[in-house]
Amino acid sequence: MKKLIVQKFGGSSVANAERIQNVAKRVAGYKKDGHDLVVVVSALGDTTDELIKLANQISNDPPEREMDMLLSTGEQISVALLAMAIHKLGFKAISFTGAQVGIITDKNHTKARIIKINADRIRQALKENKIVIVAGFQGITIDENITTLGRGGSDLTAVALAKELNANECEIYTDVEGIYTTDPRIEPKAKKIKSITFDEMLEMASLGAQVMQPRSIEVAKKFNVPIHVRSSLSLKPGTMIVKEVKIMEDALITGVTLNKNEAKITICDVPDKPGVAARIFKELSNSGISVDMIVQNVSHTRKTDISFTVPKPDSSKTIRLAKKTARVIGCGEVLEDTNIARVSIVGVGMKSHRGVAAAMFETLAENKINIEMISTSDISISCIIQKKFAETAVRQIHKKFGLG
Amino acid sequence: MKKLIVQKFGGSSVANAERIQNVAKRVAGYKKDGHDLVVVVSALGDTTDELIKLANQISNDPPEREMDMLLSTGEQISVALLAMAIHKLGFKAISFTGAQVGIITDKNHTKARIIKINADRIRQALKENKIVIVAGFQGITIDENITTLGRGGSDLTAVALAKELNANECEIYTDVEGIYTTDPRIEPKAKKIKSITFDEMLEMASLGAQVMQPRSIEVAKKFNVPIHVRSSLSLKPGTMIVKEVKIMEDALITGVTLNKNEAKITICDVPDKPGVAARIFKELSNSGISVDMIVQNVSHTRKTDISFTVPKPDSSKTIRLAKKTARVIGCGEVLEDTNIARVSIVGVGMKSHRGVAAAMFETLAENKINIEMISTSDISISCIIQKKFAETAVRQIHKKFGLG
Repeated sequence: MKKLIVQKFGGSSVANAERIQNVAKRVAGYKKDGHDLVVVVSALGDTTDELIKLANQISNDPPEREMDMLLSTGEQISVALLAMAIHKLGFKAISFTGAQVGIITDKNHTKARIIKINADRIRQALKENKIVIVAGFQGITIDENITTLGRGGSDLTAVALAKELNANECEIYTDVEGIYTTDPRIEPKAKKIKSITFDEMLEMASLGAQVMQPRSIEVAKKFNVPIHVRSSLSLKPGTMIVKEVKIMEDALITGVTLNKNEAKITICDVPDKPGVAARIFKELSNSGISVDMIVQNVSHTRKTDISFTVPKPDSSKTIRLAKKTARVIGCGEVLEDTNIARVSIVGVGMKSHRGVAAAMFETLAENKINIEMISTSDISISCIIQKKFAETAVRQIHKKFGLG
Repeated sequence: MKKLIVQKFGGSSVANAERIQNVAKRVAGYKKDGHDLVVVVSALGDTTDELIKLANQISNDPPEREMDMLLSTGEQISVALLAMAIHKLGFKAISFTGAQVGIITDKNHTKARIIKINADRIRQALKENKIVIVAGFQGITIDENITTLGRGGSDLTAVALAKELNANECEIYTDVEGIYTTDPRIEPKAKKIKSITFDEMLEMASLGAQVMQPRSIEVAKKFNVPIHVRSSLSLKPGTMIVKEVKIMEDALITGVTLNKNEAKITICDVPDKPGVAARIFKELSNSGISVDMIVQNVSHTRKTDISFTVPKPDSSKTIRLAKKTARVIGCGEVLEDTNIARVSIVGVGMKSHRGVAAAMFETLAENKINIEMISTSDISISCIIQKKFAETAVRQIHKKFGLG
């Protein structure tokens, strides 16, 4: 059956001429099989980082409109080169910028959201039997200013195009073979997950599995666009991200994730009265710091401790702000701990099963690992532990739930 | 008086962050003086060459549409960075691609011609008191494919914008201080020319003075757009290129040029009958080789020799084609001489003066330099001589006509 397939290749898949030629061969192979192809490409290797460096040599606070003007060139280079490589193989290909294929966004430069896509030009090119190559990560406002969609925005371009074109498949090519039950570098027994739900993938992504940009998964979920995450170096199927997974066995959890990029901040002796916590976190939020887990101990005195985690790069700024606020509202010390890790389990299975949390806590206890903070969602449980125990915790939990 | 000034900065003027900041300072200085500015920029340093190299790694014959897609990114990077640098100085600036400011071209990818410019967006930005930065060298077709204007195309962008916007001045910034009576590296006594006519400049450009792209001078001439060629490193006035120069003194000639990038080809014993020369040159022209000077000796027998010059890179291809044709029409040997140079004098003054050619030939004779070929136009005389005499010839002729 003739299919319309949207494929997205990331920066490492097109890092140099040889890899671009490999991508061209793979794409041409699908064309030879009779399929229609829309290929979304990121910027070559670390082009984007190099352009940012160049901008920072000029200004430490460049206008965002001009940043987008600058950064969008990275993907334009990729699409032109990939189109050349496909031509060279004897197939018809045509490259387009985000603007040229009518990816209309709002005016939020550097993190724009797609409003709509006027995909007529793509449809026309497909009708002419051309392989369509589209620059990822970019769009244009209605008044014709170039925008970019934020880090990982090429995933979003692919998902949005798949939705708009009503594609049969949306493939995200990466340098791993799919989504794993946990990081195979930590637990060699980790297994590739055949299918995972959008919700689980969202939890996995936000908890540290960096295969796909969370926003693009949200969009895929919203419009129910199934995604196939797979390797550009292999022909094996990867992981399907779908609305619902038909569970054959009783899988309690789907994966174990690890995040070592957070710091724990503790504000001691916080007056235990209404509005104090709100004030602290509003202050941080106004400064653009996104606080993650928050734990406030039940207090038996009139003072309590509040602990929370923030991304490590924001840690020193957070400390500075927290100290200021602490002084004003009469708290005690502000402590920082950067030697923590967050271990999480994710799985829709835990909705219908009791004892999942208990099993996780038990596993940690059996291994003499102290739990410093706990947070839970509908389909995930996270524990903050000392960093030195992180890998052990991941391996033991992975084993406990029979994922290996 | 408030003026609208179009300024063009070449690749060497924006080769790195520091130079971009220098250009920003100069532009801002004009704005501070109350002028409106439209700034055209080329790609950073040798970005264009690097992109071509990248393309050649992928394909030795990349589709021209995709080449334009690729190459146009170079100028887009420059305009974004220059806009950032101007912002940093506290002035409002906005960058545009060729497409964004409606530089509509024909479909001749890699060497497109400008059809029209819809400059409303520039006018609007100027009204908002912004410094407008435009990517040189590029445009867009009516069906929205990106095109480029060929080597040196940024000059053309500047001249065309100056015409369209009815600018008061069009300044072409370069790394020399203007147009000189001859190359100062050859003759240190060379003087900067204050004013030169479009026609003289066209001759100078085509005869080897590489300051401006000939096509942009043609356009400037056609629409009578005066051009100021000057240095981006100095505030001194450069050379004005204008329709007519009011000659105070009786300047016979304006400049002496040298071109060492040609080869002389001689086809011996060509049958002296109608149509033979035509056949030879048609053959070459069909292969995209542009023949320059042609000399055919008057023949007293039934055979003659034909000599002509071609750009050195085309020489071996020319030899191959000439040999083939020579065989077919019964000529003799085909000889190549790459050790030649062309020395030319240019000046509208020679129209109204006799003896200019004689003075040039005499100077060469006095210095025992043999003239191998001669060609003349209304306002120029060129001689082919052996390359080893080239610098001496330039210096002596420069002196003879009192240019130092």
